[in-house]
Amino acid sequence: MTMRVGVLGATGAVGQRFVQLLEGHPWFELVAVAASERSAGKCYREACTWKLDVPMPAAARDLVVQPAEPGGGLECDVVFSALDASVAGPVEEAFAAAGYAVLSNARNHRMADDVPLLVPEVNPEHTALVPVQKRRRGWRGFIATNPNCAAATLVLALAPLERRFGLKAVAVTTLQAISGAGYPGLPSLDILGNVIPFIAGEEEKIERETRKILGRLEGGAVAPHPAMVSATTTRVPVVDGHTASVFVTLGRDPGPEAIREALRTYRSVPQERNLPSAPAHPTLLVDEDDRPQPRLDVNRERGMASIVGRVRRCDLMGYKFVVLGHNTIRGAAGASILNAELLQSEGLLTNA
Amino acid sequence: MTMRVGVLGATGAVGQRFVQLLEGHPWFELVAVAASERSAGKCYREACTWKLDVPMPAAARDLVVQPAEPGGGLECDVVFSALDASVAGPVEEAFAAAGYAVLSNARNHRMADDVPLLVPEVNPEHTALVPVQKRRRGWRGFIATNPNCAAATLVLALAPLERRFGLKAVAVTTLQAISGAGYPGLPSLDILGNVIPFIAGEEEKIERETRKILGRLEGGAVAPHPAMVSATTTRVPVVDGHTASVFVTLGRDPGPEAIREALRTYRSVPQERNLPSAPAHPTLLVDEDDRPQPRLDVNRERGMASIVGRVRRCDLMGYKFVVLGHNTIRGAAGASILNAELLQSEGLLTNA
Amino acid sequence: MTMRVGVLGATGAVGQRFVQLLEGHPWFELVAVAASERSAGKCYREACTWKLDVPMPAAARDLVVQPAEPGGGLECDVVFSALDASVAGPVEEAFAAAGYAVLSNARNHRMADDVPLLVPEVNPEHTALVPVQKRRRGWRGFIATNPNCAAATLVLALAPLERRFGLKAVAVTTLQAISGAGYPGLPSLDILGNVIPFIAGEEEKIERETRKILGRLEGGAVAPHPAMVSATTTRVPVVDGHTASVFVTLGRDPGPEAIREALRTYRSVPQERNLPSAPAHPTLLVDEDDRPQPRLDVNRERGMASIVGRVRRCDLMGYKFVVLGHNTIRGAAGASILNAELLQSEGLLTNA
Amino acid sequence: MTMRVGVLGATGAVGQRFVQLLEGHPWFELVAVAASERSAGKCYREACTWKLDVPMPAAARDLVVQPAEPGGGLECDVVFSALDASVAGPVEEAFAAAGYAVLSNARNHRMADDVPLLVPEVNPEHTALVPVQKRRRGWRGFIATNPNCAAATLVLALAPLERRFGLKAVAVTTLQAISGAGYPGLPSLDILGNVIPFIAGEEEKIERETRKILGRLEGGAVAPHPAMVSATTTRVPVVDGHTASVFVTLGRDPGPEAIREALRTYRSVPQERNLPSAPAHPTLLVDEDDRPQPRLDVNRERGMASIVGRVRRCDLMGYKFVVLGHNTIRGAAGASILNAELLQSEGLLTNA
Repeated sequence: MTMRVGVLGATGAVGQRFVQLLEGHPWFELVAVAASERSAGKCYREACTWKLDVPMPAAARDLVVQPAEPGGGLECDVVFSALDASVAGPVEEAFAAAGYAVLSNARNHRMADDVPLLVPEVNPEHTALVPVQKRRRGWRGFIATNPNCAAATLVLALAPLERRFGLKAVAVTTLQAISGAGYPGLPSLDILGNVIPFIAGEEEKIERETRKILGRLEGGAVAPHPAMVSATTTRVPVVDGHTASVFVTLGRDPGPEAIREALRTYRSVPQERNLPSAPAHPTLLVDEDDRPQPRLDVNRERGMASIVGRVRRCDLMGYKFVVLGHNTIRGAAGASILNAELLQSEGLLTNA
Repeated sequence: MTMRVGVLGATGAVGQRFVQLLEGHPWFELVAVAASERSAGKCYREACTWKLDVPMPAAARDLVVQPAEPGGGLECDVVFSALDASVAGPVEEAFAAAGYAVLSNARNHRMADDVPLLVPEVNPEHTALVPVQKRRRGWRGFIATNPNCAAATLVLALAPLERRFGLKAVAVTTLQAISGAGYPGLPSLDILGNVIPFIAGEEEKIERETRKILGRLEGGAVAPHPAMVSATTTRVPVVDGHTASVFVTLGRDPGPEAIREALRTYRSVPQERNLPSAPAHPTLLVDEDDRPQPRLDVNRERGMASIVGRVRRCDLMGYKFVVLGHNTIRGAAGASILNAELLQSEGLLTNA
Repeated sequence: MTMRVGVLGATGAVGQRFVQLLEGHPWFELVAVAASERSAGKCYREACTWKLDVPMPAAARDLVVQPAEPGGGLECDVVFSALDASVAGPVEEAFAAAGYAVLSNARNHRMADDVPLLVPEVNPEHTALVPVQKRRRGWRGFIATNPNCAAATLVLALAPLERRFGLKAVAVTTLQAISGAGYPGLPSLDILGNVIPFIAGEEEKIERETRKILGRLEGGAVAPHPAMVSATTTRVPVVDGHTASVFVTLGRDPGPEAIREALRTYRSVPQERNLPSAPAHPTLLVDEDDRPQPRLDVNRERGMASIVGRVRRCDLMGYKFVVLGHNTIRGAAGASILNAELLQSEGLLTNA
Repeated sequence: MTMRVGVLGATGAVGQRFVQLLEGHPWFELVAVAASERSAGKCYREACTWKLDVPMPAAARDLVVQPAEPGGGLECDVVFSALDASVAGPVEEAFAAAGYAVLSNARNHRMADDVPLLVPEVNPEHTALVPVQKRRRGWRGFIATNPNCAAATLVLALAPLERRFGLKAVAVTTLQAISGAGYPGLPSLDILGNVIPFIAGEEEKIERETRKILGRLEGGAVAPHPAMVSATTTRVPVVDGHTASVFVTLGRDPGPEAIREALRTYRSVPQERNLPSAPAHPTLLVDEDDRPQPRLDVNRERGMASIVGRVRRCDLMGYKFVVLGHNTIRGAAGASILNAELLQSEGLLTNA
């Protein structure tokens, strides 16, 4: 039995990825797409300039785009939100109040005390915030969020280390793909043959979200993990796949082979429950010196893993490694869908 | 009165840059080019597939390429070496033994005790190793080296901070340009739309060379600076310009404005002596949030500065910033020429 | 019942594509890989630096690389040749003489009188050259070839027009992908942010091969099609997918809609016989003004179609359009495999 | 004695190029910059996000941006218009009516009967339309235009051939740089690693403008040249420099060496009058097989030449060649400035 789902902001870059990933999903059936007033009333194939390198799913082509508001009557129980942060805040709240389960990729509610910021392999127990949130806000529905694309990749690689060896400090430099800036997003004149050493707001997101995700649930809220996290973010001329150079200080020194083993063998709730979008290896270890590389590795595990390489000692911090993740799949739409699967597996989605 | 100079390895990527930068030099006249046996005997314009975006200097076009060996009789006093590391070792030694001043861009002798690894704005006093080297080795000439391209950019930005505030630790991630790999160098299939998170041997060079350059001369050798330096190096699809994301712990906390001031006002021996290739601002501070960028900034100060931006606090290490340098100018040929100018200004070149 | 096949030159760029496309093939089982002496004796996963963005097929990983010579005893009936043209000539002949069916991607024998240059949707009747060749040369096996990557894309788009309306003249300018130059192939310094308006030998290949493929079988050889074909070839910074801008004069003026219809509805022998690698639409018509685009469209029909767009009148020549094809699939390995399927469907492969 | 000039649309991509090229101009002094309401009132360095790889000229930094309307009182005699075509029409007319000489890069008036579409090396006699226009429209000032960037490059290469050998037909395919789309212009997601085989309106501009520029002045208007011109335009991931693949039929067959000679030796009015922005060689012939290339050649002759290579016979059309031009210099701002210099040299600017 499938659930009926909708996508808010369905015509944008992340919205398209939601539509694509939901094609043929065993649990969820895409029945509604919503977007701005400008698109509302058109059918999806007309409203949307499709920019993915696989064809638009047949099931989506003729859906009529609806306005992104709960009164509009989206006939579904779950909405995935790919809305821009400039509008997501009140719209998502209105949908949740109206009884929808809102799985949001926007940043607006990620850091709210009673909103879970979920990475199913890392903090599945944070779903306990859902009933807290519903009670506290008096909503029939709720909002659950996934992290920023760069934080998503990083935290998935940190989790196996934090769980086994403790985590004290992280210094990370990202090399982020242009698809992370949406569409039209980054002008080509800015990035062709270039590096831009700045992404507005991104470093703060990585620093705060990482600590919330790794944090502990205490009294209906999350106590951030005490590790220090410092980030520098850059944009590079890559289409898909955020790469991060990570320097890390662990709670103890397990030796590099133990770290590799922890990454190689990490499995968690999504793998145990066989969630449909769960990667077999959430942290995929690659052995070649010059990997992971976005163009060659970003689609491994269907874009749902953090791919880790170059694990080695660092005289200064303890260890260093490189990690790669697909920013619009594991870093956005895929993450949100996996969150929905986790919530569904806990019975939190159906009676939303 | 100009000195007669030659270039070894003149047909390669760095060799071409030497030839270009020496055009119209007020002190040095290019009179000889040397390369592998394959090229020897041809005139330069035939032996060389010119790959720079400015025309080949007229003075070089008709020079006959000679074999890269001192017996071949290069009629000059100074040779700039752009030789590949696979052959540079013995060839450079033979030239030095034969009385030439060898200004080398190769890595082979950089870490030798009695070979100066010079950055004229940082350690001009290391030229004192030249007489030590000549005496110890019984050579009439000598070898002086410039650092690896990534180390050159980094150390120039660190020097003003180290001088004023002390330096304890550096964690650096580089985003390096393809011209750093020479020609034919990196295959396009490897790097187009991609990041390669590895450059063979590069991290070790950055770590060791930085500490030697910042080190103190003691008893005819350099005691490496005690700062810890840890590097991760990556290659990105940029033509010219290595970018580095730097996390740094200083000896004390001067506040960000003092750091900016130190960078903005840094001047050293090359500026005081008005050396022809010296940049007016060896560490050029840029204020815009999203700078420096290789495509827009790499040619500022004629490619001879480290361009620094995004100076800000880091909860973990103390401070972080981004620095950019032109890898084939300040990171290779331009550095070597500035070294020659420094040595000449100290009278060490003429009687080589 | 599957046939046992091998790949010559299996470690190169096209060789890897053969290995990838043969994975799970319903008719052919990859049992042997051969390459240069340097690789022989190693297992494939060690001998080969895998450069595709999908993992190396499990079945190939442990195959021991053999020398590319028939005496080496490749235990198979069919060999696909991805050999470099510098060595393909005599090696392929030796294999054919020794009884192997040789499906070659190399240029060496394409223009030989008794060697079919096949595009199964265009000239399937040219397989009649196989018995001619065997008889004339006294070989137990034979050589059949596929066209140059750019010619393959072009001729497939021309065929439906030539068949229905006649073809008088073609002026084509190509914008070719870097993967067409093999690996390491094109240096990144040459092509990043650049166009190279020249590819050695490519224009002649397009001009001659197109006319042979469209030609008529007469007395045991092919009479070239009388159309005039003129090409200019360029290289652009695209990973996969050759684009061509085509100006064409037909035998009569059918109007643009008839041309679109001819392209939209074209089906031929591979489609009729349901050959495993045959695209459903060998000439796929796209309607959007700004398509086809290599990054978005190159993998449609699994890389086996010529994708045509912008069909419109041209005051000068009659009509103009743009066509795109996957250069290492339809333009190389995929073409060769489809040729093998065609020959098999005619019983020419089994008793080779 | 210098003339005072202003730039309309000074903050955009072409506007910035005007400002840069006017720095230190011997005849023209930049005294005014105008832009949209949004920028008016700010100083130029604040209103403008400078995107060139050379620093903003000091003289422009503190100019106060004025509204782009003649009533605003731009204190100058000449205005260069880099206005967007969506607003250029009436604004340029108002300025001309108010007595300004308007040198426009916009497409709006290019094809008007009494507006000269000038390429000083090709049709300097078309300046005779200036008095016609003033008289007919009753304006004290006038509008003179330069061609579309792709047409500019093409027509400059055609002119020497047309003049000597006659011109019957041209089939051209362009590979155009992203800077031709302005800023923000083309989204990076559209063009990175890609080709877009379409530029809205561009083909028609090339076809019509080329014929007007090569046309003959008859009775106060231009009779278009009778040659047939057919274009296909594409966008490629190149920063600066439009490349064109040209097939051409001349009035007679002079042999390839005569064509090369015609290109090599072409000089015209700007060269004879030593106009400040005139290239020494307006059509620069390159001999290497694989040139011209945008990254290596686009700045030759300070971006003011059409660089021609690969001149060779074409069985179909007669001849084919490749031509490259700098789209924001010779194709836009530089062309407009050279037009002003031509008009000034004829006394048409001063008493505008």
